[in-house]
Formats: sequence, structure tokens, C-alpha cells
Amino acid sequence: MRHMLKPLDFSVEETAELLSLAGRIEKNRAAYAKVMEGKKLATLFYEPSTRTRLSFEAAMLNLGGSVLGFQSADASSASKGESVADTVRVVSCYADIIAMRHPKEGAPMVASEFSRVPIINAGDGGHQHPTQTLTDLMTIQSLKGRLDHMTVGLCGDLKFGRTVHSLISSLIRYPGIRFVLISPPELRIPGYIREDVLEKNRIPFTEVDSLEASMPDLDILYMTRVQKERFFNEEDYIRLKDSYILTEEKLKNAKEDMFILHPLPRVNEIAVEVDKDPRAAYFKQVQYGVYVRMALIMKLLEVKETC
Amino acid sequence: MRHMLKPLDFSVEETAELLSLAGRIEKNRAAYAKVMEGKKLATLFYEPSTRTRLSFEAAMLNLGGSVLGFQSADASSASKGESVADTVRVVSCYADIIAMRHPKEGAPMVASEFSRVPIINAGDGGHQHPTQTLTDLMTIQSLKGRLDHMTVGLCGDLKFGRTVHSLISSLIRYPGIRFVLISPPELRIPGYIREDVLEKNRIPFTEVDSLEASMPDLDILYMTRVQKERFFNEEDYIRLKDSYILTEEKLKNAKEDMFILHPLPRVNEIAVEVDKDPRAAYFKQVQYGVYVRMALIMKLLEVKETC
Amino acid sequence: MRHMLKPLDFSVEETAELLSLAGRIEKNRAAYAKVMEGKKLATLFYEPSTRTRLSFEAAMLNLGGSVLGFQSADASSASKGESVADTVRVVSCYADIIAMRHPKEGAPMVASEFSRVPIINAGDGGHQHPTQTLTDLMTIQSLKGRLDHMTVGLCGDLKFGRTVHSLISSLIRYPGIRFVLISPPELRIPGYIREDVLEKNRIPFTEVDSLEASMPDLDILYMTRVQKERFFNEEDYIRLKDSYILTEEKLKNAKEDMFILHPLPRVNEIAVEVDKDPRAAYFKQVQYGVYVRMALIMKLLEVKETC
Repeated sequence: MRHMLKPLDFSVEETAELLSLAGRIEKNRAAYAKVMEGKKLATLFYEPSTRTRLSFEAAMLNLGGSVLGFQSADASSASKGESVADTVRVVSCYADIIAMRHPKEGAPMVASEFSRVPIINAGDGGHQHPTQTLTDLMTIQSLKGRLDHMTVGLCGDLKFGRTVHSLISSLIRYPGIRFVLISPPELRIPGYIREDVLEKNRIPFTEVDSLEASMPDLDILYMTRVQKERFFNEEDYIRLKDSYILTEEKLKNAKEDMFILHPLPRVNEIAVEVDKDPRAAYFKQVQYGVYVRMALIMKLLEVKETC
Repeated sequence: MRHMLKPLDFSVEETAELLSLAGRIEKNRAAYAKVMEGKKLATLFYEPSTRTRLSFEAAMLNLGGSVLGFQSADASSASKGESVADTVRVVSCYADIIAMRHPKEGAPMVASEFSRVPIINAGDGGHQHPTQTLTDLMTIQSLKGRLDHMTVGLCGDLKFGRTVHSLISSLIRYPGIRFVLISPPELRIPGYIREDVLEKNRIPFTEVDSLEASMPDLDILYMTRVQKERFFNEEDYIRLKDSYILTEEKLKNAKEDMFILHPLPRVNEIAVEVDKDPRAAYFKQVQYGVYVRMALIMKLLEVKETC
Repeated sequence: MRHMLKPLDFSVEETAELLSLAGRIEKNRAAYAKVMEGKKLATLFYEPSTRTRLSFEAAMLNLGGSVLGFQSADASSASKGESVADTVRVVSCYADIIAMRHPKEGAPMVASEFSRVPIINAGDGGHQHPTQTLTDLMTIQSLKGRLDHMTVGLCGDLKFGRTVHSLISSLIRYPGIRFVLISPPELRIPGYIREDVLEKNRIPFTEVDSLEASMPDLDILYMTRVQKERFFNEEDYIRLKDSYILTEEKLKNAKEDMFILHPLPRVNEIAVEVDKDPRAAYFKQVQYGVYVRMALIMKLLEVKETC
């Protein structure tokens, strides 16, 4: 039995297969509308995350399956002192596959050791969020036609931004990737990413302060939210949150075929005027997220395609 | 693409068609049991409203569709600072139609500007609640066989009662409607309804204090709840809430074929003894609410009837 | 119309039929995968109970039906002052069967008087939880092949433990049942169980302090959680909660074919090392709970088997 706990759980080959299946789903949704009939997805969300939860639920419903679960820990047995291990053993009796969101790092890993059904990590604290990474990869692949030979700009909170770390770790598996890391000095990528991931693998990268200056080089611009909850004091948050706001003005020197991604929700780091720009891809990204989750559910439950 | 944002969004003709479809659904539910197969309704409830939410969900499930969503703002991305516009653009990727409840007036209107799928306003603050009005109209039409030439008594909180304002605005489109407005002086209808809706359209109406005195004239008695949250102080609430309680005694002089409606939930404004009276129609009204929402979902998604 | 309000609502014969149907479901799930197509279960949970709610939802989904409802009172109209009677009359218009959890004893009974559809009591305060009892009975029946002629050990909080009281009341209907009641003196079974149920029906039982000493006699060991919320002070809770922890060591003298049940969630009253013991049946019990709820839904909605 396979689980999806970390972005690198799937090899480059397996990821290619998954994205290829997701692409076939996109082109012919009707062909997959009943492949999960009679199957159930449990969404165990120990902290709320509407976007992610609804994406999983839409994915399962699109496949003809059904959904049960909880949306926050208050509504769960966790408040009665039950362990994740016990909860997952119980829910294994209710569902065929589980998507788990948990504030504690490693909770989905523990769950996978006790579950009788596949576990998908839907985010564990600041740790991993593999289906976001798969969504990002599918978006890049779909819009650029490839995952290699690109200059990828990552902008905003690169210190705490989980999605950024995962995307870096995933993209370095493809040849010809170069990163431009755009952030205030306080929010630069942590040492273990810089040294153990980038330098160790001899991946070219630059760390810069200015969003505008690096713009002309980029094939992909990945924006991130500066999350209030990551800061220790209000002052730092207020000073930094607006530093890296993307506007049409700043996009002037960007390539015509550059694409702007964002894991959402955005607060104000992308001005709404940018939404109309043909390079804005963050809402398309949401749609790709559904397709890639459909593909993942099929793959983990080993559903053969009949079409 | 059509939305349903305000009670008057549908013309008299369109409303007639909708009620007619709802009537056909009532008579032959089985014929409509799969018309929404593979379609998804998102219920985005930024404030809880179990009754309304479950009515929408029952409607979509009765049509063979499925449902996803959230039940309160805590469980939504709103708490992360996301705008309604962004949320609705995201949810457009997950669902085929959206029912939105929001404490802020106009939120569903904003949503409709950014959504790729039809938006149904499921109540926005003290503003609009068009499916309640459609429910009221269907109940009157079904029980009385017509929407015209009637004396309609509206009783209780006419000042803040959103459903009452919408019902008045809708009913004046039919000939021969007369209103009896029954409330304490403090809770009379606001000026913009009295002047801009009733007087301007030369609709006959009387404003009275006594529920009993006006009873014999009424074809419909529409009771409303005196909502605690509308009052500025506890004393006023306590003094007024019990003023207009409907009892069997007060119904003595009512017509045999008068019907009692109430948008529910009731607290104590209708004594439970009245429930057994054949004129009590407020629970039937709930059932009509499901049929009319089924019809509305079909109409907004332009589902052709095959039966 | 039948409801399921108390563990003894079904006679010994009806219970046998129900367990037999649940057994057939277990053996051939596919045969029952669509028997509830087009039907809806409403889960009205006025207090959260994830395990029970998800078990009901899984049961209904396994039968091809669908689910709507609420997970806690905050999300319900109860907060607007609506009575259970009114809520259930409304929800009767939305669903074909209702599972209700309520903190107040007797609420599901009241609901059944006003509902147009069958009500299943999914737990009312410290009072009744009949589907837990049915789950326990099915587990014993399935694992031991019988419900009679057994020595059943009940361990832990026998004073407040609702499931224990219901299980005793149900099992005394079968011949040859003997109980060993294992608890600290403060948490012994209440007088009305000792006198009105056990002594009155001349059921053999012993009350003991030691879990280990009674172990060799038992055919079934039913462990229970010591719930913090049942205690008046923290000290008593801390002193007592660990008194009756089941370990592999304590199981040394147990019969080979004894089975350990637990209504879950467990906190620490069964050491995790015991989970691997072939006698540990508490997770199997969860699975049986789904089958028995499937059978119950079918029976209350009078679905004929076609297989």
C-alpha cells in the first residue's frame, strides 16, 4: 500500500505518470466520473483549511465517490484524548482513503503506520504539503509544457513558506533549473535548504532583495503569502508584509510567457489588477489542484483506467 | 449566466415558471432524481443557518447531485484574510453552483461578479433572502391556488424582518393584494418600504397594533420571529417579544381557509397548540422550500426537463 | 413507523434478525451497495461525537444513500432558541431517517413524537446509546458465535458508563450470562442496575476490585474509559483513571479465546502493546458497528433484501 506523505514520495517517473493521468482527466472528465463509485474519502482536518479540504472533496466527488470527515479538531475525538493512531485505525473502517491535515509535524506519518487505507498528507504544520507541490508541478508542466530548463523566481516568505521549500526540493530533480530567491533579509530560505538542497546539489541560485530587478529573467514567478501567524511580533509583520507586493507596474519587464503562481489564499501580495493579466495563473492553479488530486486518489487506490 | 441575488431578480413570468416547475417536482420527485448527477453544489455559509443550508443540501441531493462547503466562517479561509472575490473564484473550480450566506450585505453580489458558476444568495445580513421569498410564494400559490387578490397579514417584527420586506416587494407585483401590518409601534415597517414600495405603487395597507382585531379579514397570516439580536437592549426585547403570540383563542375569528406561514425558526410567537390547526402551514412551507430550491438549481443550471 | 431509542426497543427476536442481516452485509457488501439510493440520512449532532457520526455516515454511504446534517449545536438552529420538536419536524422534510445525538436525556424520545421519519438515538447524555449496544452484541456474536452462556467482565467506570449499563440490560435477556464487575469502589454500578436489573432477574454477578484476579474466568472483557467530565474534582480523576489499565502482563492468565472490547475512544486504559494481541477486538468492533448501523437503517426504512 502506498501513501503520499512527502513531496518526494513519488519518483520523477511516478510524478510524470501522475501528471500525465491528471492531464488526461482534464481533457476528458466524463471518462472518470464513476471510477470511484462506492468508495469513500475521509477528510480528517485537525485544523481548518477550507481550500485544501474542498479541493480533495471536489476531487473525490468528481470521481463518483463520496466524502465524510471533520473540519476542525473541536469536532473530533481528539478533544477526548484519543491518539492519531487510534483515530486512523477507526477511520480505516469507515473510508477507503484518508486525507489528513494536522498542526503537528509527522502526524500523517504516524497515521500511515496504523492505517489500513492510504493516507494523504494534506499539510502537517510547517512541514509538508505534498499535494500543493503536485499542484504547482502540474501547473508549470501544463502552462510551460515542461518542468526542466527554467528560471523560477520564488518571492515573499521564503523562511517559513512550506510550499516554497517543497517546490525547490521537487524541481531540483529536473535538469536546467535555476532559482531566484526574492525576499527581505529576515525571511530568506533557511540554511538546510540553502546548503543541503541547493548547494549540495549544485543548483544555481541567487538571493535578492528586489522583486523588480529580477523580473526579466523569470519563466515562473511563485508568489507567497506572508503569514501573520509565523511572526513573533506585530511590528515585524506590518513592516514586512507589504514589501513584496506584485503590481502591473512591476510586471512591465516580465517575459510574455512568464506565469505567476501562488498557493493561495493571497492577502494583498498580488494586487487585484494583476488578476486580469494573461500571465496570472493562480486561479488556473486551483483547477489543476483538483485534477492532480483526482489522479492521486486513483493512483493510491490503484484504479485501472478503462478509457 | 443567471444568479439569484434578490427576490425580484426573476420577473413575474419567470417566477411563475419556477413555481410551476417546483409544482411538477412535488408531484413526481422520481422524475427529477438524477437530473443533477455529477454536479456539485457548494454551500458557503459565512454564518451558520442550519435550516437554510440543509434545505439547499436536501434539494441538491434530491436531484442526484452532491454537496461540499463550510458551515461557518471559522472553518473558512476568510479567517486568513481572503476576500469573498478570491474565495468564490476558487470555489468556482470546485462546484457547479454556489449557495452563499454572509453576514455582510452585498457579499453575494460581489461574489457573482467573480464567479464562473451561478451564485444563489442564501441570505446576506438583514438585506435579502430570495429563496425564502420564493418559498413563501410557492406556499401561498400551492395552498390558495393563486398569488393575487388576497389580504395578507404580516405580524411581529416588521422593522428588521428581512423576509417580510421581500415578501411585500414580491407580492405587490400581483393584482388585488392588500396588506395588514400588525406590530408594536416600535417595530413598524421602515419608511422606505412604506413610502417607496407601498404608497408609491398605491398598494392598500393598514398598520395596526392588534393581532386579534384584524384576524377575520386575512387570507394569509405571516408570523415572524422577534429576533433578540436586532435589539439594542434586553429590556425592549423582553417587553416586546411576547406581544404578538398566536394562540388558538386568537384564531377563533379567522377564516376557515386562511393559512398561517412563518419563516422559522419560531421561538414562542406561535403557541404549539396551533400546530394541530389545519390552517397551520409553516411546516408544509419547509417542504415547499425544498421543491422551490430544486427548481431554482435546475433553472440556474439550465437543466432541460426530459419527463 | 419504528424508531431506535433504547437498547431494548428491539426484542431478542428482532435483535437476532438485525444481527443476522448485519452478518449478511459483512459477507457481501456489494449486494447492499445501492439499496438506499436516493435516500438521505440526517445526522443531527447537538454535541460532537466524531466516531459515532462517521460510523452512521459510512453506513448510509455504504448503502448508496447520502448524508446531511450538523456536527455541533453551534452550527444548529438550537442557538436561535428552536425546540428539538420543531427542528425535527423541519428535518423530516429534508431526510428519510435521522440519527440524533443530544446532551439532554430524552431528547431523541421527544424528537420521535414529532418526526415524520424514523429517529435513531445516537446517544442522549448519560442515558442511552442503543447502536453502541447493538455494536457490542454483534461483536460478541460474531467472535464467540453466541450471546448466551458466557462470563462477561466489565471494567472501569461502571457508575457513569452508559454503554456498560445498556450492555448489562441487553445481555440478561440471553440464558447463562454471568457478570464480573471490576471497578474501584467509587465507580461501582449504580443501585438501580444492581437491584432492578441484576438482582431482580437473578443474574449471577460479582463485584471486585482487581482486574487481574478475575481474568481467568472471563469469556469477554469489556473495558471502559474513565471520562474526566464525569468527575466532580480533578484529584479523584487523577487518582482513579489509571487504576484499571489493561496490559499484556495482566492478560497472562486470560483464556485463549477471551475477547477484549472497548467502546472507544480509549485514552490509556488499554496499553498500546495489547493492540497486537489476537484477543484485542476493539478495532474489529468499529467495523461491526458500521455493519450493524447499515442493517438498522435498512430495517427502520423497511428495505426488502433482493439478494
